[in-house]
Amino acid sequence: MKHLKTIALLALVVMLAACENKMQSTNTDTQETENLIFAKGEKINNDNFTGTVWLNNLVNADSVNQSAVGSVTFEPGARTKWHAHPAGQIILALDGVGYYQEERKEKVIVRKGEVVKCPIDVPHWHGASADSAFVQIAITGREKGETVWLNPVTDEEYHK
Amino acid sequence: MKHLKTIALLALVVMLAACENKMQSTNTDTQETENLIFAKGEKINNDNFTGTVWLNNLVNADSVNQSAVGSVTFEPGARTKWHAHPAGQIILALDGVGYYQEERKEKVIVRKGEVVKCPIDVPHWHGASADSAFVQIAITGREKGETVWLNPVTDEEYHK
Repeated sequence: MKHLKTIALLALVVMLAACENKMQSTNTDTQETENLIFAKGEKINNDNFTGTVWLNNLVNADSVNQSAVGSVTFEPGARTKWHAHPAGQIILALDGVGYYQEERKEKVIVRKGEVVKCPIDVPHWHGASADSAFVQIAITGREKGETVWLNPVTDEEYHK
Repeated sequence: MKHLKTIALLALVVMLAACENKMQSTNTDTQETENLIFAKGEKINNDNFTGTVWLNNLVNADSVNQSAVGSVTFEPGARTKWHAHPAGQIILALDGVGYYQEERKEKVIVRKGEVVKCPIDVPHWHGASADSAFVQIAITGREKGETVWLNPVTDEEYHK
Protein backbone atom coordinates (compact mmCIF):
# COMPACT_ATOMS: atom_id res chain seq x y z
CA MET A 1 0.00 0.00 0.00
CA LYS A 2 2.87 2.34 0.90
CA HIS A 3 4.61 1.65 -2.41
CA LEU A 4 1.39 2.09 -4.33
CA LYS A 5 0.94 5.60 -2.93
CA THR A 6 4.53 6.54 -3.77
CA ILE A 7 4.06 5.33 -7.33
CA ALA A 8 0.73 7.18 -7.65
CA LEU A 9 2.38 10.34 -6.33
CA LEU A 10 5.19 10.12 -8.89
CA ALA A 11 2.76 9.41 -11.72
CA LEU A 12 0.72 12.48 -10.84
CA VAL A 13 3.81 14.70 -10.72
CA VAL A 14 4.77 13.52 -14.22
CA MET A 15 1.21 14.08 -15.54
CA LEU A 16 1.11 17.58 -14.06
CA ALA A 17 4.44 18.47 -15.65
CA ALA A 18 3.23 17.16 -19.03
CA CYS A 19 0.02 19.14 -18.69
CA GLU A 20 1.83 22.42 -17.93
CA ASN A 21 4.13 21.76 -20.85
CA LYS A 22 1.19 21.23 -23.22
CA MET A 23 -0.44 24.43 -22.00
CA GLN A 24 2.66 26.42 -22.84
CA SER A 25 2.80 25.15 -26.39
CA THR A 26 -0.93 25.80 -26.82
CA ASN A 27 -0.42 29.40 -25.78
CA THR A 28 2.45 29.84 -28.21
CA ASP A 29 0.29 28.56 -31.06
CA THR A 30 -2.45 30.99 -30.11
CA GLN A 31 -0.11 33.94 -30.37
CA GLU A 32 1.22 32.90 -33.75
CA THR A 33 -2.27 32.26 -35.10
CA GLU A 34 -3.51 35.65 -34.00
CA ASN A 35 -0.74 37.63 -35.59
CA LEU A 36 -0.02 35.77 -38.77
CA ILE A 37 -2.86 35.35 -41.23
CA PHE A 38 -0.60 37.04 -43.75
CA ALA A 39 3.20 37.02 -43.49
CA LYS A 40 4.68 40.28 -42.15
CA GLY A 41 6.57 40.79 -45.40
CA GLU A 42 9.50 43.18 -45.70
CA LYS A 43 10.63 45.92 -43.33
CA ILE A 44 9.86 49.30 -44.90
CA ASN A 45 13.03 51.28 -45.58
CA ASN A 46 11.79 54.71 -46.60
CA ASP A 47 11.14 57.89 -44.65
CA ASN A 48 7.36 57.87 -45.09
CA PHE A 49 7.10 56.02 -41.77
CA THR A 50 8.34 56.56 -38.19
CA GLY A 51 9.44 53.45 -36.27
CA THR A 52 9.45 49.86 -37.49
CA VAL A 53 6.83 48.94 -40.08
CA TRP A 54 6.47 45.78 -42.19
CA LEU A 55 4.70 45.53 -45.56
CA ASN A 56 3.41 42.48 -47.40
CA ASN A 57 2.14 43.55 -50.83
CA LEU A 58 -0.75 41.15 -51.39
CA VAL A 59 -2.09 42.63 -54.63
CA ASN A 60 -0.62 45.21 -56.97
CA ALA A 61 -3.04 47.39 -58.90
CA ASP A 62 -3.14 46.37 -62.57
CA SER A 63 -5.46 45.94 -65.50
CA VAL A 64 -7.47 43.31 -63.56
CA ASN A 65 -8.13 45.49 -60.56
CA GLN A 66 -7.48 49.13 -59.72
CA SER A 67 -6.97 48.53 -56.01
CA ALA A 68 -3.68 47.68 -54.33
CA VAL A 69 -3.96 45.53 -51.20
CA GLY A 70 -1.27 45.23 -48.55
CA SER A 71 -0.90 43.83 -45.06
CA VAL A 72 0.93 46.36 -42.88
CA THR A 73 2.34 45.59 -39.43
CA PHE A 74 3.25 48.57 -37.22
CA GLU A 75 5.36 47.84 -34.14
CA PRO A 76 4.31 49.78 -30.99
CA GLY A 77 4.80 53.54 -31.53
CA ALA A 78 5.31 53.19 -35.30
CA ARG A 79 3.18 55.26 -37.70
CA THR A 80 2.90 56.72 -41.18
CA LYS A 81 3.67 60.32 -42.05
CA TRP A 82 0.65 62.52 -42.65
CA HIS A 83 -0.49 61.60 -46.17
CA ALA A 84 -3.46 61.64 -48.56
CA HIS A 85 -4.89 59.22 -51.13
CA PRO A 86 -6.25 60.60 -54.45
CA ALA A 87 -8.76 57.70 -54.57
CA GLY A 88 -9.20 57.13 -50.83
CA GLN A 89 -8.25 54.09 -48.78
CA ILE A 90 -9.96 51.39 -46.72
CA ILE A 91 -8.25 50.07 -43.58
CA LEU A 92 -9.28 46.72 -42.08
CA ALA A 93 -7.87 46.19 -38.57
CA LEU A 94 -6.75 42.56 -38.25
CA ASP A 95 -4.96 42.58 -34.92
CA GLY A 96 -3.68 44.73 -32.09
CA VAL A 97 -4.58 48.33 -31.30
CA GLY A 98 -3.94 51.26 -33.65
CA TYR A 99 -4.50 54.99 -34.02
CA TYR A 100 -6.10 56.88 -36.94
CA GLN A 101 -6.40 60.62 -37.28
CA GLU A 102 -7.69 62.94 -39.99
CA GLU A 103 -6.64 66.58 -40.22
CA ARG A 104 -8.65 68.81 -37.85
CA LYS A 105 -10.23 65.81 -36.10
CA GLU A 106 -9.44 63.91 -32.90
CA LYS A 107 -7.24 60.83 -32.99
CA VAL A 108 -9.34 57.66 -32.77
CA ILE A 109 -8.40 54.21 -31.48
CA VAL A 110 -8.83 51.37 -33.98
CA ARG A 111 -9.20 47.78 -32.78
CA LYS A 112 -9.16 44.33 -34.40
CA GLY A 113 -12.28 43.91 -36.56
CA GLU A 114 -12.87 47.64 -37.10
CA VAL A 115 -12.90 49.34 -40.49
CA VAL A 116 -11.82 52.87 -41.46
CA LYS A 117 -12.56 54.71 -44.72
CA CYS A 118 -10.05 57.44 -45.50
CA PRO A 119 -11.78 60.01 -47.70
CA ILE A 120 -10.25 61.17 -50.98
CA ASP A 121 -7.43 63.73 -50.61
CA VAL A 122 -7.93 64.21 -46.83
CA PRO A 123 -4.60 64.36 -44.96
CA HIS A 124 -4.45 61.71 -42.22
CA TRP A 125 -2.10 59.29 -40.51
CA HIS A 126 -2.37 55.84 -38.93
CA GLY A 127 -0.20 53.44 -36.99
CA ALA A 128 0.18 51.36 -33.86
CA SER A 129 -0.73 52.60 -30.40
CA ALA A 130 2.13 53.33 -28.03
CA ASP A 131 1.83 49.99 -26.21
CA SER A 132 0.56 47.52 -28.82
CA ALA A 133 1.46 46.52 -32.35
CA PHE A 134 -1.19 46.98 -35.05
CA VAL A 135 -1.83 44.79 -38.09
CA GLN A 136 -3.99 46.21 -40.88
CA ILE A 137 -5.04 45.47 -44.42
CA ALA A 138 -4.88 48.61 -46.60
CA ILE A 139 -7.00 48.72 -49.76
CA THR A 140 -5.87 51.64 -51.86
CA GLY A 141 -7.43 52.83 -55.10
CA ARG A 142 -4.72 53.60 -57.64
CA GLU A 143 -6.94 54.90 -60.44
CA LYS A 144 -6.25 58.55 -59.63
CA GLY A 145 -2.55 58.39 -58.87
CA GLU A 146 -0.16 57.66 -56.04
CA THR A 147 -0.25 58.52 -52.33
CA VAL A 148 0.80 62.10 -51.50
CA TRP A 149 3.21 62.10 -48.54
CA LEU A 150 3.28 65.11 -46.19
CA ASN A 151 4.97 65.90 -42.81
CA PRO A 152 6.02 63.36 -40.18
CA VAL A 153 3.65 62.89 -37.24
CA THR A 154 5.45 64.54 -34.32
CA ASP A 155 5.63 62.85 -30.91
CA GLU A 156 3.32 65.60 -29.60
CA GLU A 157 0.69 64.86 -32.27
CA TYR A 158 1.10 61.12 -31.75
CA HIS A 159 0.61 61.15 -27.98
CA LYS A 160 -2.09 63.86 -27.88
CA MET B 1 4.09 10.18 7.00
CA LYS B 2 1.15 8.13 5.76
CA HIS B 3 -1.19 11.11 6.13
CA LEU B 4 1.26 13.42 4.43
CA LYS B 5 1.37 11.21 1.33
CA THR B 6 -2.42 11.00 1.21
CA ILE B 7 -2.68 14.79 1.39
CA ALA B 8 0.00 15.25 -1.29
CA LEU B 9 -1.84 12.77 -3.50
CA LEU B 10 -5.14 14.64 -3.12
CA ALA B 11 -3.46 18.00 -3.76
CA LEU B 12 -1.91 16.72 -6.99
CA VAL B 13 -5.25 15.34 -8.21
CA VAL B 14 -6.85 18.76 -7.64
CA MET B 15 -3.98 20.58 -9.43
CA LEU B 16 -4.19 18.20 -12.38
CA ALA B 17 -7.94 18.75 -12.68
CA ALA B 18 -7.45 22.55 -12.56
CA CYS B 19 -4.74 22.31 -15.20
CA GLU B 20 -6.90 20.28 -17.60
CA ASN B 21 -9.73 22.73 -17.04
CA LYS B 22 -7.52 25.71 -17.87
CA MET B 23 -6.33 23.96 -21.04
CA GLN B 24 -9.87 23.52 -22.23
CA SER B 25 -10.68 27.20 -21.84
CA THR B 26 -7.45 28.14 -23.60
CA ASN B 27 -8.41 26.00 -26.56
CA THR B 28 -11.87 27.56 -26.74
CA ASP B 29 -10.33 31.04 -26.82
CA THR B 30 -8.04 29.98 -29.65
CA GLN B 31 -10.94 28.85 -31.77
CA GLU B 32 -12.91 32.04 -31.24
CA THR B 33 -9.90 34.19 -31.98
CA GLU B 34 -9.13 32.37 -35.20
CA ASN B 35 -12.60 32.60 -36.62
CA LEU B 36 -13.78 35.99 -35.54
CA ILE B 37 -11.73 38.97 -36.61
CA PHE B 38 -14.93 40.28 -38.18
CA ALA B 39 -18.40 39.26 -37.01
CA LYS B 40 -20.10 36.66 -39.23
CA GLY B 41 -22.90 39.11 -40.02
CA GLU B 42 -26.22 37.98 -41.47
CA LYS B 43 -27.15 34.67 -43.06
CA ILE B 44 -27.58 35.14 -46.81
CA ASN B 45 -31.15 34.47 -47.90
CA ASN B 46 -31.00 34.55 -51.68
CA ASP B 47 -30.48 31.83 -54.29
CA ASN B 48 -27.06 33.03 -55.46
CA PHE B 49 -25.51 30.62 -52.96
CA THR B 50 -25.74 26.90 -52.16
CA GLY B 51 -25.61 25.92 -48.48
CA THR B 52 -25.21 28.23 -45.49
CA VAL B 53 -23.29 31.45 -46.06
CA TRP B 54 -22.92 34.51 -43.82
CA LEU B 55 -22.16 38.06 -44.97
CA ASN B 56 -20.84 41.02 -43.01
CA ASN B 57 -20.86 44.10 -45.27
CA LEU B 58 -17.82 45.99 -44.03
CA VAL B 59 -17.78 48.77 -46.61
CA ASN B 60 -20.36 49.78 -49.20
CA ALA B 61 -19.10 51.37 -52.40
CA ASP B 62 -19.83 55.11 -52.43
CA SER B 63 -18.40 58.43 -53.50
CA VAL B 64 -15.43 57.91 -51.12
CA ASN B 65 -14.42 54.57 -52.51
CA GLN B 66 -15.54 52.47 -55.47
CA SER B 67 -14.84 49.13 -53.81
CA ALA B 68 -17.26 47.18 -51.64
CA VAL B 69 -15.67 45.05 -48.92
CA GLY B 70 -17.37 42.16 -47.17
CA SER B 71 -16.44 39.31 -44.86
CA VAL B 72 -18.05 36.10 -46.10
CA THR B 73 -18.23 32.88 -44.08
CA PHE B 74 -19.06 29.67 -45.98
CA GLU B 75 -20.01 26.64 -43.91
CA PRO B 76 -18.54 23.31 -45.16
CA GLY B 77 -19.93 22.47 -48.62
CA ALA B 78 -21.39 25.95 -49.15
CA ARG B 79 -20.50 27.95 -52.28
CA THR B 80 -21.55 30.72 -54.64
CA LYS B 81 -23.25 30.18 -57.98
CA TRP B 82 -21.07 30.64 -61.02
CA HIS B 83 -20.80 34.44 -61.41
CA ALA B 84 -18.73 37.24 -62.93
CA HIS B 85 -17.62 40.70 -61.79
CA PRO B 86 -17.57 43.58 -64.32
CA ALA B 87 -14.66 45.17 -62.39
CA GLY B 88 -13.06 42.00 -61.00
CA GLN B 89 -12.73 40.90 -57.39
CA ILE B 90 -9.99 40.25 -54.84
CA ILE B 91 -10.41 37.44 -52.31
CA LEU B 92 -8.32 37.35 -49.12
CA ALA B 93 -8.56 34.01 -47.30
CA LEU B 94 -8.74 34.67 -43.56
CA ASP B 95 -9.49 31.22 -42.18
CA GLY B 96 -10.35 27.63 -43.06
CA VAL B 97 -10.01 25.92 -46.42
CA GLY B 98 -11.86 27.00 -49.55
CA TYR B 99 -12.23 26.23 -53.26
CA TYR B 100 -11.95 28.63 -56.21
CA GLN B 101 -12.54 27.78 -59.84
CA GLU B 102 -12.58 29.78 -63.07
CA GLU B 103 -14.40 28.59 -66.18
CA ARG B 104 -12.30 26.07 -68.19
CA LYS B 105 -9.70 25.79 -65.40
CA GLU B 106 -9.12 23.31 -62.57
CA LYS B 107 -10.58 23.92 -59.14
CA VAL B 108 -7.90 25.22 -56.75
CA ILE B 109 -7.70 24.96 -52.97
CA VAL B 110 -7.41 28.28 -51.13
CA ARG B 111 -5.99 28.42 -47.63
CA LYS B 112 -5.77 31.03 -44.86
CA GLY B 113 -3.39 33.83 -45.91
CA GLU B 114 -3.76 33.21 -49.66
CA VAL B 115 -5.04 35.78 -52.15
CA VAL B 116 -7.05 35.29 -55.34
CA LYS B 117 -7.68 37.85 -58.10
CA CYS B 118 -10.81 37.15 -60.12
CA PRO B 119 -10.35 38.71 -63.55
CA ILE B 120 -12.95 41.03 -65.06
CA ASP B 121 -16.02 39.26 -66.52
CA VAL B 122 -14.58 35.72 -66.12
CA PRO B 123 -17.20 33.25 -64.80
CA HIS B 124 -16.01 31.58 -61.61
CA TRP B 125 -17.21 30.30 -58.23
CA HIS B 126 -15.80 30.04 -54.73
CA GLY B 127 -16.79 28.58 -51.39
CA ALA B 128 -15.82 26.31 -48.54
CA SER B 129 -14.22 22.91 -49.03
CA ALA B 130 -16.38 19.90 -48.25
CA ASP B 131 -14.91 19.36 -44.79
CA SER B 132 -13.94 22.83 -43.56
CA ALA B 133 -15.58 26.23 -43.31
CA PHE B 134 -13.96 29.12 -45.21
CA VAL B 135 -13.77 32.76 -44.17
CA GLN B 136 -12.83 35.32 -46.84
CA ILE B 137 -12.70 39.05 -47.39
CA ALA B 138 -14.13 40.00 -50.80
CA ILE B 139 -13.08 43.31 -52.35
CA THR B 140 -15.35 44.06 -55.27
CA GLY B 141 -15.05 47.01 -57.64
CA ARG B 142 -18.47 48.53 -58.26
CA GLU B 143 -17.45 51.15 -60.82
CA LYS B 144 -18.61 49.04 -63.78
CA GLY B 145 -21.84 47.61 -62.39
CA GLU B 146 -23.11 44.75 -60.28
CA THR B 147 -22.16 41.06 -60.14
CA VAL B 148 -23.63 38.90 -62.93
CA TRP B 149 -25.06 35.67 -61.45
CA LEU B 150 -25.07 32.50 -63.59
CA ASN B 151 -25.85 28.79 -62.94
CA PRO B 152 -25.57 26.97 -59.60
CA VAL B 153 -22.40 24.91 -59.07
CA THR B 154 -23.59 21.30 -59.30
CA ASP B 155 -22.44 18.67 -56.79
CA GLU B 156 -20.49 17.06 -59.65
CA GLU B 157 -18.64 20.31 -60.41
CA TYR B 158 -18.11 20.96 -56.71
CA HIS B 159 -16.58 17.59 -55.89
CA LYS B 160 -14.58 17.17 -59.12
